Amino acid sequence: MKKIAIVGAGNVGISAAKAVMDSPDMELCGFIRRKEKAVPGFEKIPVAESVFDFSKKPDGAIICVPSKSVEPIEAKLLENGIYSVDAFDIHEELSPMKKRLSESAKIGNVSAVIGAGWDPGIDSIVRTLISAVIPEGKMFTNFGPGMSMGHTAAAKAVFGVADAVSVTIPAGNGKHTRKIYAVLEKNADKNAVEHGILSDGYFEHDECSVEFVDSVKPFFNTRHAVFIDAADGTHKLSFRMENDNPIMTGRMLVSAMRAAFLQKPGAYFMTEIPPCNFCAENCEKYL
Amino acid sequence: MKKIAIVGAGNVGISAAKAVMDSPDMELCGFIRRKEKAVPGFEKIPVAESVFDFSKKPDGAIICVPSKSVEPIEAKLLENGIYSVDAFDIHEELSPMKKRLSESAKIGNVSAVIGAGWDPGIDSIVRTLISAVIPEGKMFTNFGPGMSMGHTAAAKAVFGVADAVSVTIPAGNGKHTRKIYAVLEKNADKNAVEHGILSDGYFEHDECSVEFVDSVKPFFNTRHAVFIDAADGTHKLSFRMENDNPIMTGRMLVSAMRAAFLQKPGAYFMTEIPPCNFCAENCEKYL
Repeated sequence: MKKIAIVGAGNVGISAAKAVMDSPDMELCGFIRRKEKAVPGFEKIPVAESVFDFSKKPDGAIICVPSKSVEPIEAKLLENGIYSVDAFDIHEELSPMKKRLSESAKIGNVSAVIGAGWDPGIDSIVRTLISAVIPEGKMFTNFGPGMSMGHTAAAKAVFGVADAVSVTIPAGNGKHTRKIYAVLEKNADKNAVEHGILSDGYFEHDECSVEFVDSVKPFFNTRHAVFIDAADGTHKLSFRMENDNPIMTGRMLVSAMRAAFLQKPGAYFMTEIPPCNFCAENCEKYL
Repeated sequence: MKKIAIVGAGNVGISAAKAVMDSPDMELCGFIRRKEKAVPGFEKIPVAESVFDFSKKPDGAIICVPSKSVEPIEAKLLENGIYSVDAFDIHEELSPMKKRLSESAKIGNVSAVIGAGWDPGIDSIVRTLISAVIPEGKMFTNFGPGMSMGHTAAAKAVFGVADAVSVTIPAGNGKHTRKIYAVLEKNADKNAVEHGILSDGYFEHDECSVEFVDSVKPFFNTRHAVFIDAADGTHKLSFRMENDNPIMTGRMLVSAMRAAFLQKPGAYFMTEIPPCNFCAENCEKYL
């Protein structure tokens, strides 16, 4: 039985905690959060500001903080001998981050699985598999429509934003537009906030528009979807997923946590993990 | 550059040979077949009755013979230090065969990837991944309509059958019916042949019917399809593939061959292989 701590208690952290509790091979040993108070619904679970405040060191930590905050937290955990997983979602930064976290993991003699959500994550495995069998094919990943957790967190972090929701709208052939619903902080400057959002790395690649609203409540919905569509002249492959975004992310993180314990010291992408290692049970029945 | 031999020169063998020739990291060093004569379209490629007749021992062998003939051939190759892959497709015999071939592989200090087609194979990875994230979900694999290579080979091997095609027809929720078009050998007994087909392990699980025809030509078509459909109360995942059956099988076999060279001695299912190892190129762009 592996003792697992959850770092962060937002939507993903709470979903990951539930997935740990549903796992026959893991027990939830605590939450790490800035405000040291019980997480609603998990009143009996210890809460600490640091993983090192628990009476027993956890075996593994599932990092459920916004992507931009992941690396320093994860590096410290790994260097101190705690296995880790994250759902870091900035695709172009995955490779350099893996190199750095591999060094941290080797110092602590443990492993990490990074980018372990559904995209990057499940989708990455599907795309890799498709690319292996139709190497000359065209492949598109189409998201949504649905609220993006990564983009929502990025918009909320912009100076002057009190609350935000970022919705991804598929425009076909792997292109997307994004609509950001934002609540302004008191006295914040609309133009400066709009510029702050649109110039963020999360938004600069796509056509985006910002709408200022009084409340994001009508736009907050955790359901999301993806459609991977690939073909060459002879073959056609597609993968479609409709999910509850934080629940699916939490479950994948827990599956990746399980796999991390079986890897040699280092940091890994999900595509570098034998898929059977994600399963709690013997998965030969799925052959 | 790995030297690869193809065992068998049927539809899959020829497709695998083409996939080897398309691979930047492999060269086709020969075909193994009973009749020692050139394979049409591959006149410059050496042909031998045994892999040990080639001037240089191949690094790997792709076994493209009917499933029931695979194991003794593969065991001998492995014990003699040749890496191997097969697309063995009798699901319930995969686990015991893996145990036996693992021993052979360890004797020869090499590796094998078994059941490396599209089902078992690609679909097995998709099912395993789905089971990891919706463990309480329902999942169905629906094939076709299309000609099954394994079932066609099994029907052709029945005493009294001159030629055959077995078509898989999806009946929904993972159930199938099968229609076997068979050409009788001269003086063969219809009833005995029909019984011979229907009592074969390939056919006994499904509702099957046999129709005797003068030629299977109108029914021979290498296009096939699969639809994996899974859901729980919150999530819905599906994988759809329309393929040319031998081409897709040949390509997956070559991808698995590449991965076999990276495994420790032993026999493996595709679900035990890191997906990135199937790719000839750096697959980080698919993250």
